[in-house]
Amino acid sequence: MAQRHILVTGANGFIGSRLATQLMESPDFADCRFTLLDLAHATPSTDPRVRQLAGDLSDPATLDSAIGGRADLVFHLAGILGGAAEQDYALARRVNIDATLTLLERLRDAENPPRVVFASTIAVFGPCGGAPIDDDTLPLPTMTYGAQKRMIEIAVEQFSARGWIDGLALRLPGIVARKDADARLKSAFLNTMFHAYEAGRDIVLPVSPDGTTWLISVPACVEAFVHAARLPGGTIGARRAFTLPAQRVRIDGLVAALARRFPTSHSQVTYQPDAALEQLFARQPQLTTALADALGFCHDGDIDRLVARALQA
Amino acid sequence: MAQRHILVTGANGFIGSRLATQLMESPDFADCRFTLLDLAHATPSTDPRVRQLAGDLSDPATLDSAIGGRADLVFHLAGILGGAAEQDYALARRVNIDATLTLLERLRDAENPPRVVFASTIAVFGPCGGAPIDDDTLPLPTMTYGAQKRMIEIAVEQFSARGWIDGLALRLPGIVARKDADARLKSAFLNTMFHAYEAGRDIVLPVSPDGTTWLISVPACVEAFVHAARLPGGTIGARRAFTLPAQRVRIDGLVAALARRFPTSHSQVTYQPDAALEQLFARQPQLTTALADALGFCHDGDIDRLVARALQA
Repeated sequence: MAQRHILVTGANGFIGSRLATQLMESPDFADCRFTLLDLAHATPSTDPRVRQLAGDLSDPATLDSAIGGRADLVFHLAGILGGAAEQDYALARRVNIDATLTLLERLRDAENPPRVVFASTIAVFGPCGGAPIDDDTLPLPTMTYGAQKRMIEIAVEQFSARGWIDGLALRLPGIVARKDADARLKSAFLNTMFHAYEAGRDIVLPVSPDGTTWLISVPACVEAFVHAARLPGGTIGARRAFTLPAQRVRIDGLVAALARRFPTSHSQVTYQPDAALEQLFARQPQLTTALADALGFCHDGDIDRLVARALQA
Repeated sequence: MAQRHILVTGANGFIGSRLATQLMESPDFADCRFTLLDLAHATPSTDPRVRQLAGDLSDPATLDSAIGGRADLVFHLAGILGGAAEQDYALARRVNIDATLTLLERLRDAENPPRVVFASTIAVFGPCGGAPIDDDTLPLPTMTYGAQKRMIEIAVEQFSARGWIDGLALRLPGIVARKDADARLKSAFLNTMFHAYEAGRDIVLPVSPDGTTWLISVPACVEAFVHAARLPGGTIGARRAFTLPAQRVRIDGLVAALARRFPTSHSQVTYQPDAALEQLFARQPQLTTALADALGFCHDGDIDRLVARALQA
């Protein structure tokens, strides 16, 4: 049997880089070859199984090179995210829709449909009105990013129904804790608060203490991607796009967990709620993820473990 | 004030041609100019307000010419439908996704967002499991056509949320009765039965007498498009994609109505159910269309009126 080919797009990113490391260290994928695609790579790889490819997914030659004839397992994480998609619609369409659809089309193989794990987002839900969210909630995205991810979720389900790919679209909640979170990102505070508390720096939170948000740690997120790769095709039903399990935490509960984790930190936390950020990140309603639960996906378990793992990587 | 420009794509089609006629006869649109776009036009127009454009929407020059700088009201009916999309995915992507997204993008006008009425379809729902369908039902399309229409519905809602267009996506049920229904179309029987009964020809129906299907007449469909054009923007909420009201009729009820309409017809109706056609067209569950109802859309009223109007045009 030919050596399996694994493609990771966005492989230099916060999640992608950790996922690539995890895959290469896993005995399950020991005999695979890997193509890691991103616009650039921070560090050269010394693993002989690895091909690092620097290029733009929306360039057809790069796309062809990345697939290299055939890919058996694809993690598609590259994309124009959140605020960037909102600010540059044309770029977001080119990458998130055009290039992504073309990627899915070029992966089509009716005999051996490749497993494709697509990074979607809870932004597909759009503004949450407070009503609980479950797998049957109708996504009503209003931002470019969430709408484009939802459009591709539909393509993943349709391509899978036709047997062209064996796809899964995983809606990611907030993933913590990005150390180098771009301060311009509206969600930056959710990441920086972890590192600031650890370092004993004071923190001003732009949300209220009773705000609620959905979180998992980056190790839990990477585990979910690896789990999605391993799931036997026959165990997955027609529903291929769903929300990953996440803990719904209160902001003050998170601060309390940080205090338990770092009892000697002198970090002072104050609250200066911003209505827009509160709406985006701290009004997340109750969440039920029955489809993902049944397939064996899970979150960090409890808030102390979330905090510990968020700072692990 | 500049003369309003109305663009109709698919203007030579079953619905498009009737819609164009209705618009041109309506006093509301008397002072407008019209661009009628289709691959070809059956008859030349003598109306001085009309520009007939023959061309492919997926050709950028055709698209630019069709919009002609600005369109104030757009009816987007052109597309690769049902079985054709299933058989030629590449063409369907090019027209239904690429060209349609580009059309929406080129219509963007934040100051005077044009009203865009997009012809969607109940095929967005995919295989119906028997549970009632309403506006909050999660569409789970499995066929290319339904999936692509659903993807554009999401774009219409997102573009409208950003104020770029003032869009509406209307999900069309079965529209009767196409006289020249392509016999290769799986839904052809739903159209030909009307004309065959009127002409006294015998009919073999590929569905069972207790099958149920959602129907409106083509005049009711055209009225819905015109109504969508007239709705004041302020009366429409964030939900821009929804199912049109339709009558849910039993197949034997339809045959009985045809018998009442044509009491002297000698047409003999027999049933030879085909499982696939039954699943596609005669297992449609109960339908509630609260969003459309609240906006004043309506179906033909009763089955006798449906039959009469289906044969009117």
